[in-house]
Amino acid sequence: MGPQATADFLAKLVAATPVDREQDHLRVQIDSNPKVPDRSDAIAGRGPSPGPVLAAMAAALERAGVDFLVMPCNTAHAFELEIRAGLGVPFVSIVAEAGAACRRNWPAARRYGLLATSGCIAARLYQDNFEDNVEEVLEDRHAARVPSVVTLSPADQQRFMALLYRIKLGDQSNAARAAMRGFGNALIDAGADVIIAGCTEVPLVLGATDLARPVLDTSANLAQRCVRYALRFEPLPAHAQPFMIEISKA
Amino acid sequence: MGPQATADFLAKLVAATPVDREQDHLRVQIDSNPKVPDRSDAIAGRGPSPGPVLAAMAAALERAGVDFLVMPCNTAHAFELEIRAGLGVPFVSIVAEAGAACRRNWPAARRYGLLATSGCIAARLYQDNFEDNVEEVLEDRHAARVPSVVTLSPADQQRFMALLYRIKLGDQSNAARAAMRGFGNALIDAGADVIIAGCTEVPLVLGATDLARPVLDTSANLAQRCVRYALRFEPLPAHAQPFMIEISKA
Repeated sequence: MGPQATADFLAKLVAATPVDREQDHLRVQIDSNPKVPDRSDAIAGRGPSPGPVLAAMAAALERAGVDFLVMPCNTAHAFELEIRAGLGVPFVSIVAEAGAACRRNWPAARRYGLLATSGCIAARLYQDNFEDNVEEVLEDRHAARVPSVVTLSPADQQRFMALLYRIKLGDQSNAARAAMRGFGNALIDAGADVIIAGCTEVPLVLGATDLARPVLDTSANLAQRCVRYALRFEPLPAHAQPFMIEISKA
Repeated sequence: MGPQATADFLAKLVAATPVDREQDHLRVQIDSNPKVPDRSDAIAGRGPSPGPVLAAMAAALERAGVDFLVMPCNTAHAFELEIRAGLGVPFVSIVAEAGAACRRNWPAARRYGLLATSGCIAARLYQDNFEDNVEEVLEDRHAARVPSVVTLSPADQQRFMALLYRIKLGDQSNAARAAMRGFGNALIDAGADVIIAGCTEVPLVLGATDLARPVLDTSANLAQRCVRYALRFEPLPAHAQPFMIEISKA
């Protein structure tokens, strides 16, 4: 949705592709549509749902012949079911891939610090992903190995959102970078073992080595996974498969 | 065609758009297709023409509902007539816009140094644009105010092409930047008043202030013009209008 994040994702996809010549790069069909209604406002009940327009965009890309779809906007994945309901092609989720990367890269991490929009946090995209992928579910939920998700204080979250909207207007200044590092450090102070850049605007001003804890760039991670799937290094994951719609005779 | 150049163009388009909020950004439909056959090889008669696939891509974007089309690849404009023949929507030429920017920004310039592919030079895209837009055509062609186009020596042009293909594989190293500056300086030594970055890979490693003469970034210029046209600050130029196809009864 954020067009800077879209351009950044395309650049990361290109950088992640192993090539001997230009023609080895992947063909990518993009609908960069900043007119999509604000996702956080919709989740908070303050604005129209972006669901219908996202579903229409996905359907148009399917008609254009793509092999699979991705959406480099974390918060918009709150509308994933609506988007996927009518789709016949796989849809690779940025949240599912980020969760899988966390489990793969940092299996011992107990607390993930989440830099994400208020909508993404309210929709529990990351919290649910961690809970749904626990290997051993114990009777006592608290004893299960579910990593906890640490978020900013309400006041910091409000300031973080203001920063995100400035980034969406083009601010990638040193001040914006310093402020983003500050939010990352606040999560580390709150005990985070790993920071999830859970909004694709975050890595525009936060580098992989800007913090004393690892940072998962959800946009770069999605790009790397896309390359592996597109080049058939790995099959598309189960989460991405189109729904089987059962029509039952009532 | 070069996917780095496409991502760069999208970023420049976003940066050139005046916005108060994310939704003010332009909607952009992109077909980033690195599978298009090499343009320079085709122009040299060494490979298949990219014309049919470019025309098919343009037609698909027209069907997707775009208001106008652009192609951030200079050399591919050698196939512009083939692309536009079947189009009902305007096509804004990167070459025509670069030529217009040269005349607007540097009306006194007499020699333009052209950093472009061998195909772009052989197809005379810039040379013809300057000749076709002379304000006063005198009987003596040499006395007319046609700026001349300076190109690299054959040996340098060969090295420049090798550099371009390295950039297409992701090389944006300091060595690549130094080599590109060297080619720019060779054109300045040959008398160029202005350097045209006439291949959208060039600005990936050559900044506006890297040379002692002005550099026209044809990709950034096209992006800036797109914004003006999309926001109706200016009408689309005559060169962009769809052809009127006359079908005569023989």
